[in-house]
Amino acid sequence: MPEPPGLPGPLPEPHVDELRLETVLGALSDPLRLRIVRKLLLESEAYDHTCGWFGLDRPKSSLTHHFRALREAGVTRQRQYGLERRSHVRVADLDARFPGLLALVAAWTPPADS
Amino acid sequence: MPEPPGLPGPLPEPHVDELRLETVLGALSDPLRLRIVRKLLLESEAYDHTCGWFGLDRPKSSLTHHFRALREAGVTRQRQYGLERRSHVRVADLDARFPGLLALVAAWTPPADS
Repeated sequence: MPEPPGLPGPLPEPHVDELRLETVLGALSDPLRLRIVRKLLLESEAYDHTCGWFGLDRPKSSLTHHFRALREAGVTRQRQYGLERRSHVRVADLDARFPGLLALVAAWTPPADS
Repeated sequence: MPEPPGLPGPLPEPHVDELRLETVLGALSDPLRLRIVRKLLLESEAYDHTCGWFGLDRPKSSLTHHFRALREAGVTRQRQYGLERRSHVRVADLDARFPGLLALVAAWTPPADS
């Protein structure tokens, strides 16, 4: 869906043409990051979400690292809203470059121990 | 396609039901490993291939490591033929568990510097 006007600009990210399969797969090869992307896909792709929305029981510094890794790989877009960053999945870009990949993430089942 | 009779048994590998998306994506998040799997897919899925067939200019120990990582993640099956190991992609298993993933690998373009 088109972005509403007046949003803060996105933090630095690769252009859609620069997305690399190996980098995107690397960013998704972690259960916590798969969980983040899956929740964004299944529960609300329409909006930017803060770290807190995900309900992840991890130190903030660890979450910051994972959200940044997803953005730098081109999986998510992050915007700075005052003191906090919010994320959403770059669905159109990923579907254009790697069709079918997000369906695999949506269908992923978290490991039993997490 | 069904395997011909009389092949050496496969080396240890995860069962199709045990394949984990995060593990498979991790194994594929490397340009050399993507190159190996892509070449197997595009040029000859019907047979087991030795390291040498791939024409990769890397030390043998490095290749052994990468082929083992692919097998342990469940991407390839390896068999021991005397002193050498040969690999092929587990196409049916991967298509059953992660439909569309191998198409992304087949469509992958190696980075300009490799």
